Amino acid sequence: MKKVKGGVTAPKGFQAAGIACGLKRSGKPDLSLIVSEVPAAAAGVFTTNQVKGNPVIVSQRHLKDGTARAIISNAGNANTWTGERGTRDAFEMAELTAKALGIMTQDVLVTSTGVIAKTLPMPKVRSGIKQIVKHLSSRGSAKAARAIMTTDLKPKEIAVKVGNITIGGIAKGSGMIEPNMCTMHAFITTDAKIDARTLRSILGNAVNKSFNLVSVDNCMSTSDCVLVLANGLSGQKVEPGKMHAFIKAFEFICEHLAREIARDGEGASKLMTVKVKQARSEADAKKVVKAIIGNFLLKAAVYGRDKNVGRILQAVGSTTARVNWEKFKFDWKIGNKEDIISVDLAAGKNSASGWGCDLTEGYVHINAKYRT
Amino acid sequence: MKKVKGGVTAPKGFQAAGIACGLKRSGKPDLSLIVSEVPAAAAGVFTTNQVKGNPVIVSQRHLKDGTARAIISNAGNANTWTGERGTRDAFEMAELTAKALGIMTQDVLVTSTGVIAKTLPMPKVRSGIKQIVKHLSSRGSAKAARAIMTTDLKPKEIAVKVGNITIGGIAKGSGMIEPNMCTMHAFITTDAKIDARTLRSILGNAVNKSFNLVSVDNCMSTSDCVLVLANGLSGQKVEPGKMHAFIKAFEFICEHLAREIARDGEGASKLMTVKVKQARSEADAKKVVKAIIGNFLLKAAVYGRDKNVGRILQAVGSTTARVNWEKFKFDWKIGNKEDIISVDLAAGKNSASGWGCDLTEGYVHINAKYRT
Repeated sequence: MKKVKGGVTAPKGFQAAGIACGLKRSGKPDLSLIVSEVPAAAAGVFTTNQVKGNPVIVSQRHLKDGTARAIISNAGNANTWTGERGTRDAFEMAELTAKALGIMTQDVLVTSTGVIAKTLPMPKVRSGIKQIVKHLSSRGSAKAARAIMTTDLKPKEIAVKVGNITIGGIAKGSGMIEPNMCTMHAFITTDAKIDARTLRSILGNAVNKSFNLVSVDNCMSTSDCVLVLANGLSGQKVEPGKMHAFIKAFEFICEHLAREIARDGEGASKLMTVKVKQARSEADAKKVVKAIIGNFLLKAAVYGRDKNVGRILQAVGSTTARVNWEKFKFDWKIGNKEDIISVDLAAGKNSASGWGCDLTEGYVHINAKYRT
Repeated sequence: MKKVKGGVTAPKGFQAAGIACGLKRSGKPDLSLIVSEVPAAAAGVFTTNQVKGNPVIVSQRHLKDGTARAIISNAGNANTWTGERGTRDAFEMAELTAKALGIMTQDVLVTSTGVIAKTLPMPKVRSGIKQIVKHLSSRGSAKAARAIMTTDLKPKEIAVKVGNITIGGIAKGSGMIEPNMCTMHAFITTDAKIDARTLRSILGNAVNKSFNLVSVDNCMSTSDCVLVLANGLSGQKVEPGKMHAFIKAFEFICEHLAREIARDGEGASKLMTVKVKQARSEADAKKVVKAIIGNFLLKAAVYGRDKNVGRILQAVGSTTARVNWEKFKFDWKIGNKEDIISVDLAAGKNSASGWGCDLTEGYVHINAKYRT
């Protein structure tokens, strides 16, 4: 496995674009499109929030047949809690994209992120979709990565090659980022030849080890999703002998994007990496990871560069995870860009890692000022 | 029921004191004592954190017989994660207090709050205990309330009279405040005549409706407790006919102290009161209360004076509470000192209220700088 450039357009047969259609007051890019030359096996994981964005409903429906070709995504407006009008708007986004690309509506996935409970200004979206197809390019990943951003400071992009297969991804995160897959947008493309069922299973496992172990603020979003398209154009089938390497590469992509989302959390000055080992069960290990990455006091201590033992004890002790307190150990490495907190529960053989960020005045500023 | 002055020394036969014995670097009061003239029925509710302060262990043991006469409490050092030495120190605090008062060691309850994993400087505590008994006064409540403070800005004190019975309370809170009764110190005294078993049951119910529905930062502390002493000196038995009024007054005391703890949360500029109604079950109502009071984004929105509908939807939707989304309603009253968020789940007949505070730069400052 080696890293390559090109993000979601690194795999064969993918094009992408990102433009501004006027949804962000700032005039920054806010509409992105990823397209596969041919129908692709497709899978998605979505928010578990009871309140779901309208685009989530559309994408879930269009994923039912396990095939898709395009992902149209807007930032600046989440098209959530916008009633029947919102559902129609989300479907119309898929329809217009399909028409502009000459493909089937059910092969278009839709995502939206931004403010909740405001109707999408459809005239802007309609003319945006007409425009964006003209900008599609096999080098368009960076622009797409930028157009899905909200309060993110940096675009998030990665690609790797494993044998003849390439896998690429882009993501956005920043606020409302929390375990439970309900947290961000991440779009992954690959030219591997793989069936939708296998892809779905690989995606589910990878998300549990990556995006679901990230927390910026414990807040579960209503709109977010991880989508993957596999178009097979490398000609390389993911056969049993190659499966392990493919899965590793796929997980690497997810973990990289998850870490970058945590690192770029709202107001964050530092990545907080948490490693839990010797847990009695994987569930216990994850519980402790989440208790630490989601802990207000520890997040503030990471910012303050204070290895506060009391806060570690408080966080671990507040869970129901089995701990052998006599042998309990922890280590806290303070770095300039990353703190690594390792916890040894001395209670078994399972481990887990997760990622968060520090809590700074910046987080408060952003979220006290962000207006609906 | 009417409010009266005097806090924990308002009920007959209680004295209190608060002095500085040198545990706080600032030189502020850090040792408090509450004493009943006669043995009192006693009950306590303690942290559910796996890591418990040594004083918790001592107090739990001394409460087993349902009788106590004194509460000795220090601030500045939690005597937690301090090994066998710490357990001995906590027992010694009870012993020394008993000796100085001429009462039995098992009638002394002990609590400590402050930094974790530092051994108590016992020479200071020993001479402090010798001193404090000389300061006991039937007007000493305000001084005791001040001596249990850590990062609190204001002492918290209340007393009410219901018939011939008086109930008083003091509390401290501020950081590490979260539902689950593991959250703060609150000491309640009453001159009612009541047995320990009934007292325990009334305390448990009252805590569930008050202290367990407060959150400053979702962090469960290792040391905190609510203790109550009922010495019977009013001569008034809490008979069946008077029970209801007594319970109401007792709950009023707990709710008042809980609210004051939330209002004085670290860095807080505002109280955040959350009322949930029409929930299918009480558990559902509490779930939603907690999801709202503990929500980073909503806490920041209260600070920013932004009635952000998206964040309410996000918080309520992230729970498993049954919601009739078609009829779901909410209201958000912004005040200068208090925001009231009311949520109607339209799914049943149960309700619950809880209290939190806004998230400000002040919280980050305090917790990034607070050192072990």
